[in-house]
Amino acid sequence: MIDLRSDTVTRPDDAMGEAARTAEVGDDVYGEDPTVNELERRAAEAVGMDAALYVPTGTMGNQIAARTHTDRGDELLCERTSHIYNWEVGGLAQLSGLQVRSVDGGARGVIDPETIHGELVERSDHRPGTELLALENTHNQKGGVAITAEEIDAAAAAAADHDIPTHVDGARLFNASVALDTPAPRLLENVDSVMFCLSKGLGAPVGSMLAGEEGFIARARRNRKLFGGGMRQAGVIAAPGIEALGNVERLAEDHENARALAAGLDAIDGLSSQSPDTNIVLVETRGPAERFVERIAGEGVRASAFGEHTVRLCTHWDIDDEDVEGAIESVERAMD
Amino acid sequence: MIDLRSDTVTRPDDAMGEAARTAEVGDDVYGEDPTVNELERRAAEAVGMDAALYVPTGTMGNQIAARTHTDRGDELLCERTSHIYNWEVGGLAQLSGLQVRSVDGGARGVIDPETIHGELVERSDHRPGTELLALENTHNQKGGVAITAEEIDAAAAAAADHDIPTHVDGARLFNASVALDTPAPRLLENVDSVMFCLSKGLGAPVGSMLAGEEGFIARARRNRKLFGGGMRQAGVIAAPGIEALGNVERLAEDHENARALAAGLDAIDGLSSQSPDTNIVLVETRGPAERFVERIAGEGVRASAFGEHTVRLCTHWDIDDEDVEGAIESVERAMD
Amino acid sequence: MIDLRSDTVTRPDDAMGEAARTAEVGDDVYGEDPTVNELERRAAEAVGMDAALYVPTGTMGNQIAARTHTDRGDELLCERTSHIYNWEVGGLAQLSGLQVRSVDGGARGVIDPETIHGELVERSDHRPGTELLALENTHNQKGGVAITAEEIDAAAAAAADHDIPTHVDGARLFNASVALDTPAPRLLENVDSVMFCLSKGLGAPVGSMLAGEEGFIARARRNRKLFGGGMRQAGVIAAPGIEALGNVERLAEDHENARALAAGLDAIDGLSSQSPDTNIVLVETRGPAERFVERIAGEGVRASAFGEHTVRLCTHWDIDDEDVEGAIESVERAMD
Amino acid sequence: MIDLRSDTVTRPDDAMGEAARTAEVGDDVYGEDPTVNELERRAAEAVGMDAALYVPTGTMGNQIAARTHTDRGDELLCERTSHIYNWEVGGLAQLSGLQVRSVDGGARGVIDPETIHGELVERSDHRPGTELLALENTHNQKGGVAITAEEIDAAAAAAADHDIPTHVDGARLFNASVALDTPAPRLLENVDSVMFCLSKGLGAPVGSMLAGEEGFIARARRNRKLFGGGMRQAGVIAAPGIEALGNVERLAEDHENARALAAGLDAIDGLSSQSPDTNIVLVETRGPAERFVERIAGEGVRASAFGEHTVRLCTHWDIDDEDVEGAIESVERAMD
Repeated sequence: MIDLRSDTVTRPDDAMGEAARTAEVGDDVYGEDPTVNELERRAAEAVGMDAALYVPTGTMGNQIAARTHTDRGDELLCERTSHIYNWEVGGLAQLSGLQVRSVDGGARGVIDPETIHGELVERSDHRPGTELLALENTHNQKGGVAITAEEIDAAAAAAADHDIPTHVDGARLFNASVALDTPAPRLLENVDSVMFCLSKGLGAPVGSMLAGEEGFIARARRNRKLFGGGMRQAGVIAAPGIEALGNVERLAEDHENARALAAGLDAIDGLSSQSPDTNIVLVETRGPAERFVERIAGEGVRASAFGEHTVRLCTHWDIDDEDVEGAIESVERAMD
Repeated sequence: MIDLRSDTVTRPDDAMGEAARTAEVGDDVYGEDPTVNELERRAAEAVGMDAALYVPTGTMGNQIAARTHTDRGDELLCERTSHIYNWEVGGLAQLSGLQVRSVDGGARGVIDPETIHGELVERSDHRPGTELLALENTHNQKGGVAITAEEIDAAAAAAADHDIPTHVDGARLFNASVALDTPAPRLLENVDSVMFCLSKGLGAPVGSMLAGEEGFIARARRNRKLFGGGMRQAGVIAAPGIEALGNVERLAEDHENARALAAGLDAIDGLSSQSPDTNIVLVETRGPAERFVERIAGEGVRASAFGEHTVRLCTHWDIDDEDVEGAIESVERAMD
Repeated sequence: MIDLRSDTVTRPDDAMGEAARTAEVGDDVYGEDPTVNELERRAAEAVGMDAALYVPTGTMGNQIAARTHTDRGDELLCERTSHIYNWEVGGLAQLSGLQVRSVDGGARGVIDPETIHGELVERSDHRPGTELLALENTHNQKGGVAITAEEIDAAAAAAADHDIPTHVDGARLFNASVALDTPAPRLLENVDSVMFCLSKGLGAPVGSMLAGEEGFIARARRNRKLFGGGMRQAGVIAAPGIEALGNVERLAEDHENARALAAGLDAIDGLSSQSPDTNIVLVETRGPAERFVERIAGEGVRASAFGEHTVRLCTHWDIDDEDVEGAIESVERAMD
Repeated sequence: MIDLRSDTVTRPDDAMGEAARTAEVGDDVYGEDPTVNELERRAAEAVGMDAALYVPTGTMGNQIAARTHTDRGDELLCERTSHIYNWEVGGLAQLSGLQVRSVDGGARGVIDPETIHGELVERSDHRPGTELLALENTHNQKGGVAITAEEIDAAAAAAADHDIPTHVDGARLFNASVALDTPAPRLLENVDSVMFCLSKGLGAPVGSMLAGEEGFIARARRNRKLFGGGMRQAGVIAAPGIEALGNVERLAEDHENARALAAGLDAIDGLSSQSPDTNIVLVETRGPAERFVERIAGEGVRASAFGEHTVRLCTHWDIDDEDVEGAIESVERAMD
């Protein structure tokens, strides 16, 4: 089975297993797990922020960020297909009483400054004010689009003009960094917080990081407790997370594989696929996406239906170039 | 001063004052206010619904409807400039934990069936389900657009295909009914609930009605208590409300006045205004809307800035054709 | 029928009806209703506060106060049988996400300073902080107990020691004031906000007042909009409210009637009732309270079951001394 | 340093480390992590329930249970010093809009059936209904009290009389089971759900289990996603969790150590301590608890202030009988 459903399916390697086994641990609720502390220090450095917080999932990291940046009754502005709004079970409203203002980011999922100026709501007697801009990089739903530093700068500057902070859902931030050949700290130079996942392309079994200013992270830590994310001897999973931070350069292979995969699939009759920025391949199918997914599963390839006629395939570190070739051949057979 | 800011500024007439004075009242929390009961009976009839509930404001009526139709963690679909989403202080998220899915309704603020089919979210492990469609008629932000019975039918049918009820924010429902020459019950034939205001064009001092099925209204009654809307001897204000139900036909005058106002303003250099469906005139200004509002105030005309270059003027029962002429002249002077 | 269920059932008198008819009104959402403004000015004065806000119900006034004094995730301390916690449909959690810390106020429903010092929770990484003390005067559930200025001072001082404001649910505040012969401003000298009802013993058909500092009331006004309490030409009901402010002294009659009623009922075999502070008579019944209520209803007296063996009877301005005598005789017949 | 602050500070042993290293994993969000699945199967069996769910923390397990058992606007009944109400950052109100009805459980923290019958609120137009009873076993704040099967049965039966389910916060459930010599399934025979921690006395580095009926756990799984607890290759920490399930019998040692510790401390002048049921020793200090904690820390013993004059010390698997002796001697020195 060639599993291209998501880069979340990767399994940890031996170095990660060994790291888990030998991690020095303590009670992280008391701030005493040296491995977690080390991971938080390194993660902050990797994204050029003051401080970082280890959280069990990217969803929790995003939701903590949204809550920590806002007050009761505020609004958050994001792209209409963004993960924080669409795929996190409505947490913004459920957990923090936030209203979403969603705007269209076009084919690349980028929110331009004019849209921000035009859509941001000033708090008034009748209106909740927009108090947070949330961007996503890479943009999952748009097919792993790598948003450039300039695009992020422009959006964040527009928000800052209204004294509104910017959070980046960087579940796959390092894919953007590698694809754009831009260091992550440069990508985030003008934003206030970022969440990135250790557990997708970087290969860690569990966990994500939320990073920002010291005071922000201190308040985020309390919200992590509220959301039930205050784990104890978390060093056991933080240790493979430290290993994962070393896997950034390797993401280039996933991108190369994704481009090969897209090209191969695009050549198949009835399918079309554009060359992706990173590791997410979106394929347009003539028939229903669900049926396509079933058919290729019968040939040993797993993918995710992502729309009525859109299928998503992700490359990741358990997929090599032979798997890509195999996947293309299998899809060809399935389409016969 | 010619006050065109809103049709909410109308003052009750003598008949309403007398009705307030002589109303037979009781404790409505116990369901014992005969005047409220009578108003609720007549209001239900006026919109062709089973039952109705008297509420102090349209905002409360809409928010009760949203809460009563949904469960914790659901989504509501509405037009992106709709009142329930933009002008009710974020109540959907704050009071009921609802997430909004907003869609573009174009120039008239109508949501077409394809958009509904495409945007409604089916509840899943990652997603809140869309469980309510909210329409607005007339559509305030788009300039009092009267949505037709066919348009409502089509939207409600699309929602019903997914077993989702439809609520109509009919703050100015009877303006639509009169403008379209369609009885209100016909406009609402395929929707599940409606809120309409007694206090706008109909002229009552206070109050709105929420109408729907018996069971819905029973549950809405409890939510009215929660929101602090369970008044006692409300017959004092329900009585003028009963009078207001008799003012439906008169709305035609407001519409005529609005058309005259729009034509007059459109003829002024630097302004443009399309002929309105009902009583709301939107004027595009060359300079900033705020400044225009200030300048005409200096000439004795009050209006509301509605966007950077958009101003709203409403006709209502305290405005007659002479006021319209006077207003046009005043604006001309202001624009010199 | 002698209706002693509640002092909410009172009907407005002619002066109130006339006031409703002739009230000068405007749009209160724009702050332009002169009658509402006048009522707010007078109400603030009556309780010795800077400013006041007219709200449709006491429940809304309390809920606005709780929300306005707190932030997301705070706690509120109150007596365990208090109205704000028990009889407002769980609004504290539903509308504002507040957690209640309830303490036992003994037979009189008074929270002593030691309890406050001991129960107030300091905000920490694991705990929401207590950020509001809510008192109730008179205390409804305990039988209209009039809490003294000294008792309120002591409680408020204890809260202030921890920088926590105090709100008084004074739905029947003037009953306490009259019973204790203490001016309302003295009762509230050390508290931060108060809600009192125009619509109970004072006889207005609709409405309550929330009073406090200017800034507090400004923020409360926005929350009133959120809760759907921003009415338009509210002067129609504010005018009888102004009349109601003149009815304070008259409450002494209700208290006298209540004492006579309690004495009369206590003398009946199978019933016991203590002499009340104000206008609320609690009667202990040998059999089930529900059955007792039904039986006396058969004899023309209405009362409310308030517990398994407790029945509440309220005197009010539609009840005179003959009604009291009549009620006692009816109950005697019912108990035969 | 002898760390008696909590049994959460335990470090995993070699077997757990090896289990983490060699765990077979998959993506648990897709339900494909065989190690998590195995842990969930075994955990359900260990408590005699149909199904179980792995969660990162006990707090998340409790909060998911509360949300899953209730609807918007419900109430939860619990003991006034219970963890779910006091130490989970107000999550009940914040995350799920639940109101707490807290009752006094006396010295042992047990809620008797009469209290439940008397305090449960039936849903009405004015009141949220009580829809969940939450018990805690062992009861942390009362000093690790082991609640008996009969006590739980009686409370759960009282709740069931009102069709209300019972959840047990069994963070230290197996301590109760061992202390009472009652199998866990017998303790839970009449309750609907239980949360227990793998990470306290059982020694796992991370994680807790929520168990109940199939349908309940399916709905809980969605709420886990909402709260950000849907981890990926969680087998890495589930594997040590499976090891932890084998550590139940060992808890008897902790209890013995705790009794010895309590006896030793009780013999010291200025301290008093009752013999504990399980592994939590509460010590009453003459002076402030905070100062006592500081002083013994100076002598190498760590404990937690638990009240103004109460200190908590926990025994656990990193503490042996020599540590207990050492701790007593250190405290003696500190008290000199």
